Amino acid sequence: MSITGENFIGNIRSGKGESSFQAFNPTGNLLMPETFAYATEEEFEQALSLAQDAFVSYRNTSAIKRAEFLETIVEEIMALEEALIERAVTESGLPVGRITGERGRTCGQLKMFARLLRDGWYVDARIDTAQPERAPLPKSDIRRMLIPLGPVAVYGASNFPLAFSTAGGDTASALAAGCPVVVKSHPSHPGTSELVSSAIIKAAKRAGMPEGVFSALNLNNDQSVKLVQHPVIKAAGFTGSRKVGMTLFNAAVNRPEPIPVYAEMSAINPVILMEEALKAKGEAIAKSLAGSVTMGAGQFCTNPGLVLLIESEAGKNFLNYFEQYLGATEPATMLNKNICASYRKGIESIKTINGVSVLAEATKAAVEERNESKPIAFTVSAEDFLLNRQLNEEVFGPATLFVLVKDTVQLHLVLNQLEGQLTATVHAEPEDKGNLIAIIDIITQKSGRVLYNGFPTGVEVCHSMQHGGPFPSTTDGRSTSVGTAAIYRFLRPVSYQDIPDELLPEALQNANPLNILRLIDGSWKTDLIP
Amino acid sequence: MSITGENFIGNIRSGKGESSFQAFNPTGNLLMPETFAYATEEEFEQALSLAQDAFVSYRNTSAIKRAEFLETIVEEIMALEEALIERAVTESGLPVGRITGERGRTCGQLKMFARLLRDGWYVDARIDTAQPERAPLPKSDIRRMLIPLGPVAVYGASNFPLAFSTAGGDTASALAAGCPVVVKSHPSHPGTSELVSSAIIKAAKRAGMPEGVFSALNLNNDQSVKLVQHPVIKAAGFTGSRKVGMTLFNAAVNRPEPIPVYAEMSAINPVILMEEALKAKGEAIAKSLAGSVTMGAGQFCTNPGLVLLIESEAGKNFLNYFEQYLGATEPATMLNKNICASYRKGIESIKTINGVSVLAEATKAAVEERNESKPIAFTVSAEDFLLNRQLNEEVFGPATLFVLVKDTVQLHLVLNQLEGQLTATVHAEPEDKGNLIAIIDIITQKSGRVLYNGFPTGVEVCHSMQHGGPFPSTTDGRSTSVGTAAIYRFLRPVSYQDIPDELLPEALQNANPLNILRLIDGSWKTDLIP
Repeated sequence: MSITGENFIGNIRSGKGESSFQAFNPTGNLLMPETFAYATEEEFEQALSLAQDAFVSYRNTSAIKRAEFLETIVEEIMALEEALIERAVTESGLPVGRITGERGRTCGQLKMFARLLRDGWYVDARIDTAQPERAPLPKSDIRRMLIPLGPVAVYGASNFPLAFSTAGGDTASALAAGCPVVVKSHPSHPGTSELVSSAIIKAAKRAGMPEGVFSALNLNNDQSVKLVQHPVIKAAGFTGSRKVGMTLFNAAVNRPEPIPVYAEMSAINPVILMEEALKAKGEAIAKSLAGSVTMGAGQFCTNPGLVLLIESEAGKNFLNYFEQYLGATEPATMLNKNICASYRKGIESIKTINGVSVLAEATKAAVEERNESKPIAFTVSAEDFLLNRQLNEEVFGPATLFVLVKDTVQLHLVLNQLEGQLTATVHAEPEDKGNLIAIIDIITQKSGRVLYNGFPTGVEVCHSMQHGGPFPSTTDGRSTSVGTAAIYRFLRPVSYQDIPDELLPEALQNANPLNILRLIDGSWKTDLIP
Repeated sequence: MSITGENFIGNIRSGKGESSFQAFNPTGNLLMPETFAYATEEEFEQALSLAQDAFVSYRNTSAIKRAEFLETIVEEIMALEEALIERAVTESGLPVGRITGERGRTCGQLKMFARLLRDGWYVDARIDTAQPERAPLPKSDIRRMLIPLGPVAVYGASNFPLAFSTAGGDTASALAAGCPVVVKSHPSHPGTSELVSSAIIKAAKRAGMPEGVFSALNLNNDQSVKLVQHPVIKAAGFTGSRKVGMTLFNAAVNRPEPIPVYAEMSAINPVILMEEALKAKGEAIAKSLAGSVTMGAGQFCTNPGLVLLIESEAGKNFLNYFEQYLGATEPATMLNKNICASYRKGIESIKTINGVSVLAEATKAAVEERNESKPIAFTVSAEDFLLNRQLNEEVFGPATLFVLVKDTVQLHLVLNQLEGQLTATVHAEPEDKGNLIAIIDIITQKSGRVLYNGFPTGVEVCHSMQHGGPFPSTTDGRSTSVGTAAIYRFLRPVSYQDIPDELLPEALQNANPLNILRLIDGSWKTDLIP
């Protein structure tokens, strides 16, 4: 499976651009041989024009056909076999086990959306039947369901080269919704993206999908912004830095026709350790927390970057344990040179902040030539934390900050001034419960997912997952990027008034041919309409 | 019931501002005696601070308590009796029958949300139960539901002084969702707004709601923008002009923390008349269409401002009928001086456009001193329509434009270049069906509601209504301002992971105390969790 470095303009591979880049192997600290051509303006316009054309037929495919398409993508991804794993490992520096697991997650997501499409209820069908005799005015027959928004731009994320990238959550949910996808391949794993793109195109052909249902482009920074500004694009999904996320968001909302951008940007995912929990299982928490902070070199959106505890004897013991466990962790290669350099810079910058001390560091040195990051933990008092907004900013990597709080009042103060987060966690024992109601109320306001006695890393892919919280963790806390509810990103409702049955979409027809739950005159049921 | 001209800062009436304005009686063409004080900066900040404080307890009220609150608002609005009707009639120029009907609609909306709250399923509860034995990693218990966003700014609309204003759809859905509301009273009916506000405040006190759950302010243009920029505000609802809607939208998305603005702005609501329909019932359609264009002086967001028909003998006959019926309509007083002046200017401007001819006009003259508008209809060829974008713009009032199309190909061309609309309508007979599938596919892409053999004016308040379409008809076609689904404007999802049952919201507790439908491990049911 050789890498060509070309773009996927619908079903055609094309690499006419003279400007190009190379992939980077962070573990070996070297550029890889193949060159990847940035899309030319012509290629770019062609991909978007194909997406627009594809939408006309793709929006009218049945949910079952789209389910088959997603399942065929899974087959084609698996058919890439070890070539995909090897390429992704080399380009990301992530271990084989992790990448193999991520491939499973990626395929699992596609299969989950296929099941959702077969179940069919996601269209939120609502029917209010006619009342021709109603006075003073007769009531029409009105039926409402969700339909696809239009072509979607998906920006691959660096930290999940499979699960949040080319065939990741946004691509899966957009294709499931009935929206063609134009992927901006992430330059940190362009070969991985090419392999996955080739699998999607093969699947689209096998499943009889219209050309243009999927394209993947190598784009420079200016072109990336142009993608979200293009009139054909009706929504975009992004996971990455706050800076790039806000650039895309601002470009999208200031278009002549504003569109939604679902950008997941940054979070420090506070963890609150209650005293009774520290007393009962301080060592176990210290061990698991050190694991959560350093997992995958800390390169998770849900990495716990802030830990709050009220000063106590149990807290002191806990910190001692944490010091030991963090000390024993290993430096690990980061995704690329820039991320590694940013981590090092971020760490140095925190060290200079008034009141911040280093609590613990991995004892083993990080090898610079392998782009490794060294796990580290800091402490700061609540007063100093409140004085410096910089401590609210994410340092992407295996670092965390312990905020030592005096009492419950101060804890509430710190929690109330936090920015929006993807997750917030509390560790407690039954004896802590008196204080918990207020704390859970506050952190629910601040986050998209609230955890009890767990760790935020590890985002389950399921119906009930909410991966997306208030700004700035995302640009739209009303939406999730993980789980079946992610399909709502790319749908909008439409009502049909007095439309003859045979002209209605199947989901709304009298006979309920899809056999889905529908809200009929105020009650959810699978009944037919007589 | 005397009008004080004050603001409602939570439960307190306050009118400290030195700057003020008077209400206008458009039928009498005169200013009304009372002066309305613009809120001072202090009053403004106080209302927002009260809203923020109120949110802490209001977000935790039970759905039943909020239902009782909405029902109490209905009682208090009805208790205003004829004073409310008289004031609204005088300030809006709309007839007593219409305002009485609108009061019914307003109370109906509040009651509908109360029923939705009692039904309880609107929180979209989803539960994935734990699988502690799952390998390689155990699965957590995850539960997801919708929670309120935070304080909401509601901008009253001029054209529905009750149903889309102080206690209108946005206020009802925001209060139902658990969000405090700060209303910007519309200066076209400030006395009406004051009366309704007093009813809401009485209801809030009677229902034991926290002070600040509702405030209503008289704001100038700058202050209106400041409202949507205020950090306390987490979402806004607006119905009005594209210019003001986009000013609010731009202010909201360019805040340090961007927030959603649901602005309904402008639409020309295309109506397509198929040949067989014109043959079978051309006169009936002409009569009803003339009624729909002129209803309420054409001051509806769903006013049919564009009518498309393929040139034919039946079409000619239809236009003759329409000329007669429109000629027999009556000029009517518009909502205020500015709207009336804009209408007259808009009409004059259309007359100057190349290829546009006047098809029909009401024979009776409009009385300028009563701020009356004269119904009018224009014709233009499809070629000339396509050449001039201005013909896509709404002229707010009783005017419509007939576009004469040569054939089906040209019809598709015109439809495909339309902007986003609230509604799109087709009139057809069974014999037209061959052409209908493609037409309905196109107009579904262009609008939020598709009608068959009906008229878009008259928006049913029900579960299946979608009142909101693609830009520029609204800033967010994923949302509706009418019907129960409007509650989703002001909610966002949150997941709870492994939270002890007694700390969960009732909607997610094992025992299902609200007895609602929940998605449990992939199936919708009302079961308990064992």
